[in-house]
Amino acid sequence: MRVYADNAATTRMSETAIAAMLPYMDKIYGNPSSLHSFGQEAAEVLQQARETVAGLLGAESREIYFTSGGSEADNMAIISAARLGAKKGKKHIISSRIEHHAVLHTLDKLKKEGYEITLLEVGREGRVKAEDVAAAIRPDTALVTIMYANNEIGTIQPIKEIGAICKEKGVIFHTDAVQAVGHLDINVKEQNIDMLSLSAHKFHGPKGVGALYCRRGLILTNIIEGGGQERGKRGGTENIPAIVAAAAAMKEACENIEKHAIYVSALRDRLIKGLAHIPHAVVNGSGEKLPGIANFCFEGIEGESLLLLLNKDGIAASSGSACTSGSLDPSHVLLALGLPHEVAHGSLRISLCHYNTIEEVDHIIASVPKVVDYLRDISPVWEALMEGERPHVI
Amino acid sequence: MRVYADNAATTRMSETAIAAMLPYMDKIYGNPSSLHSFGQEAAEVLQQARETVAGLLGAESREIYFTSGGSEADNMAIISAARLGAKKGKKHIISSRIEHHAVLHTLDKLKKEGYEITLLEVGREGRVKAEDVAAAIRPDTALVTIMYANNEIGTIQPIKEIGAICKEKGVIFHTDAVQAVGHLDINVKEQNIDMLSLSAHKFHGPKGVGALYCRRGLILTNIIEGGGQERGKRGGTENIPAIVAAAAAMKEACENIEKHAIYVSALRDRLIKGLAHIPHAVVNGSGEKLPGIANFCFEGIEGESLLLLLNKDGIAASSGSACTSGSLDPSHVLLALGLPHEVAHGSLRISLCHYNTIEEVDHIIASVPKVVDYLRDISPVWEALMEGERPHVI
Repeated sequence: MRVYADNAATTRMSETAIAAMLPYMDKIYGNPSSLHSFGQEAAEVLQQARETVAGLLGAESREIYFTSGGSEADNMAIISAARLGAKKGKKHIISSRIEHHAVLHTLDKLKKEGYEITLLEVGREGRVKAEDVAAAIRPDTALVTIMYANNEIGTIQPIKEIGAICKEKGVIFHTDAVQAVGHLDINVKEQNIDMLSLSAHKFHGPKGVGALYCRRGLILTNIIEGGGQERGKRGGTENIPAIVAAAAAMKEACENIEKHAIYVSALRDRLIKGLAHIPHAVVNGSGEKLPGIANFCFEGIEGESLLLLLNKDGIAASSGSACTSGSLDPSHVLLALGLPHEVAHGSLRISLCHYNTIEEVDHIIASVPKVVDYLRDISPVWEALMEGERPHVI
Repeated sequence: MRVYADNAATTRMSETAIAAMLPYMDKIYGNPSSLHSFGQEAAEVLQQARETVAGLLGAESREIYFTSGGSEADNMAIISAARLGAKKGKKHIISSRIEHHAVLHTLDKLKKEGYEITLLEVGREGRVKAEDVAAAIRPDTALVTIMYANNEIGTIQPIKEIGAICKEKGVIFHTDAVQAVGHLDINVKEQNIDMLSLSAHKFHGPKGVGALYCRRGLILTNIIEGGGQERGKRGGTENIPAIVAAAAAMKEACENIEKHAIYVSALRDRLIKGLAHIPHAVVNGSGEKLPGIANFCFEGIEGESLLLLLNKDGIAASSGSACTSGSLDPSHVLLALGLPHEVAHGSLRISLCHYNTIEEVDHIIASVPKVVDYLRDISPVWEALMEGERPHVI
């Protein structure tokens, strides 16, 4: 049995998304900037896709800018807000310690340019407190950027509350909603969101396409210059097949949020229950979470070895973010929860979607304890823990 | 009859490219950064695609960075070379007046940052002279960026000679080869190219994917920060389906360069011959050109009206670059040739590919004179020209 349980890293495209994409490869393939009928057909579907995406977020179509993905949208949002702030002498940015690297590395870049960055703590729960945001805002704060839901542990952040605080204080609020769009109900106006990033391949749409919602009135800074596409803010021939498929996938995902959440969270809960008997293990993050993500730490083992052995059992899982899986450092998210390095190293992220089955989850439930036992048997760290030479942390 | 004659704007995906892309949508859809088999399958095809693209350019696979398209590659190359130059106190950049806006607008941005930009003239031929490049290079020149072949008039630039001059003088040489790759034989080492941008949708590959070749030893500046993809230089989950299809399309195009060039240039020559009887018309650019592009100016008419009437006859053509077709200004390329504004306004770009047929070209040959006559009949400018109130320019 082959089980794909790494849906937070990327997803399989849905049949709907593939079907939506195909006609735009070799039938309606014009450049939407062209005046002729091939181009105008493309321009029309581009506008329809923009309206679909806008509608699903509670935004206006002119507030949607298509990008090459979530990372580009995050970069563009943060750089833009930073530049807008700098014009008013505001060079302070608030974020959290558990953001995606597309956010954190962009903030690092701005730090080198003289911006001051405050990264809020999230505590063991893995959640930013709205009051901490309020307390961190200063007269020179240009931007608050807090992710909607965490990609490793699935915790949902208090977006509406943070948005309300930012709105009241006149600070731009961006949220990296790459893990949330298509999985949670979002309304940018009701939730006081000024900018929001999304990525289609996280909700069964194509790779290589995302969008930035940017509230009307906020001026974006181009990070890719070119032929004036996307209201002059993002150069490059519009990726019509992917944009159309992204909109179709988003519509499909958003229309099924409740249905999928019920099913997927039941699978997740079955998984957590099924692994609960493993000693010295913990489920990371608490409170409101994404339906599909379960993140565990098993004391005394290495996450990488765990993944490789699970892979031998046909199970595709992750130790954290796919983007950093090549790295030997433990997850910055798990460290931010206050876990010691050696515990954070033993992490396992299972991320499920509605394509997963009970049988697949049961296969994971059968495999993980076996693999954890095996790895503990050969682990000198575990031996030391068992013999009382070191204290157990979990 | 519906004739797509705007292949310089974008192309229809080839069957080969589509077939290459499909399996990576819902079968092999892992994230190549993941350790499990789904991810590793993706990582393998990513590496294969990188080797294919590298091989076709005479480069090494580690010199290829996949991007979201030609514009991003241009931006990344120019910004990177500018930053490398600045570190050595070099803030002068040489380019030409006929570059794509992805280049020119990036240079505009650098100009605002204090870089000095020299835009070389191209003369009526539409070609940069290698000796002009040599003469323009100064001790503080950081970069020469000259396009391989022009997107509006098709003129091929003396890339190898310019490259040799840059190499000798120790200046980085970038070429925007978006119109050239897949259409002309290119070898970055033999042609002394340090950086080269390409875009898959210009050679029957997918939209939303391109690549930057960057010679080993030159350090790129990230313009999209993220999870460390593309050797840490370009954040964002790799767009595997598009990258695989881009490599397949590039292979197909490069293997057929000669065959397609013979056929397409014969179509183009038939077109030019077939329209030669139109009075007060000119074919723009001269010397060595891309096989598929023919650019005309017809005195006394507006290019936009021409396009709209050709479209009524089923013909999809362009007045210049698709990216600026919404603009009322005449093409900056045609103005750079020294054409007066009113002549440059009457431009028509027909860009053919191997999917076009003789029948289609004959349809264009039948339609254009009819439409030009009609527009001249209703044109006050043409009336003034005919009555000798204004002198003819062409």
